[in-house]
Amino acid sequence: MDAKGTLKDHISKLTVLSDEEFDYFFSHFQQQSFKKGQAIITQGDTVNYEYFVISGCLKTFFVNDDLKMFILQFAMSTWWASDYNALYNHGKATVNVDCISDTEVLCLSNADREKLCKELHQVEHFFRWRTNRGYVAAQKRLLSFMNNDVKGRYEELLNLYPELYNAVPKHLIAAYLGVSRETLSRLH
Amino acid sequence: MDAKGTLKDHISKLTVLSDEEFDYFFSHFQQQSFKKGQAIITQGDTVNYEYFVISGCLKTFFVNDDLKMFILQFAMSTWWASDYNALYNHGKATVNVDCISDTEVLCLSNADREKLCKELHQVEHFFRWRTNRGYVAAQKRLLSFMNNDVKGRYEELLNLYPELYNAVPKHLIAAYLGVSRETLSRLH
Repeated sequence: MDAKGTLKDHISKLTVLSDEEFDYFFSHFQQQSFKKGQAIITQGDTVNYEYFVISGCLKTFFVNDDLKMFILQFAMSTWWASDYNALYNHGKATVNVDCISDTEVLCLSNADREKLCKELHQVEHFFRWRTNRGYVAAQKRLLSFMNNDVKGRYEELLNLYPELYNAVPKHLIAAYLGVSRETLSRLH
Repeated sequence: MDAKGTLKDHISKLTVLSDEEFDYFFSHFQQQSFKKGQAIITQGDTVNYEYFVISGCLKTFFVNDDLKMFILQFAMSTWWASDYNALYNHGKATVNVDCISDTEVLCLSNADREKLCKELHQVEHFFRWRTNRGYVAAQKRLLSFMNNDVKGRYEELLNLYPELYNAVPKHLIAAYLGVSRETLSRLH
């Protein structure tokens, strides 16, 4: 499926747009290609875009003062990624987004998302439900961190991204789970 | 301010409704009073409502197999609380909501929220931005848990709920931070 078809299929799971409405919606996205390892958002950047992944894989991550990396999210085909705190609040990025493999995305600016939500009620409906789902996923992840439930986090990861396990180096999976490589190897 | 005024003031920070639209919106809420210690949602329940706090204080919490309690959220005046995973996905509650003090709420059913969002575009806009903010707050909290940044969590708490510190027993504040009472007492 091409980029347009992938987005249309994704949107249609949560909302109904006519072909004309979808064409108009789609006209606000720009397609971009990134190479493996390339940075899309870096801590300290101004953030104006969110990214819908067509193919490849992104990671959203944070590096603390001791240079330890924490992975907040992986994003494969049909997932969205950005620094949403910076995007929504017009602040500087506190997390990074880069490419685990060569990646094709469609990007949408903050201003265009708000314009589209205002013009098309069904687009606002789509983005409300997309965020509702993200909110619930973040709360689940938070609970498993509070409870120090590493096995739960591992199962949630395989559940969320069944195709990920073979596509991503093990040290990145450990950084998502917040455990060492040794602990990870005991889990499977 | 009465319950209706509190809700109207809250909504008007994110969206614009005419007086007639607001009256219609408000007619879908039911006002309820709960006593200190009373349970509103218990793990295993079916969840049909979300709760907008007028006065008092709620906590959303989880109890693990070792009977250790983790507090996900406090909700004081103008905050919303529910088990959103259960509410949105029509599942059983995995968290509890109860009252830290006598509490007045306005409750809105899942079905009525969806009906109102469909009927009034501005209501959908309000709920999208409410969830956007919740999503960003959950991600920030997740990052501070991953990074084991207790001081950061403590500052975030005082920032989010400046009035909370005197209103809530210290053992509940420790349960929100995910630390012992002893660690908490070293933080301030």
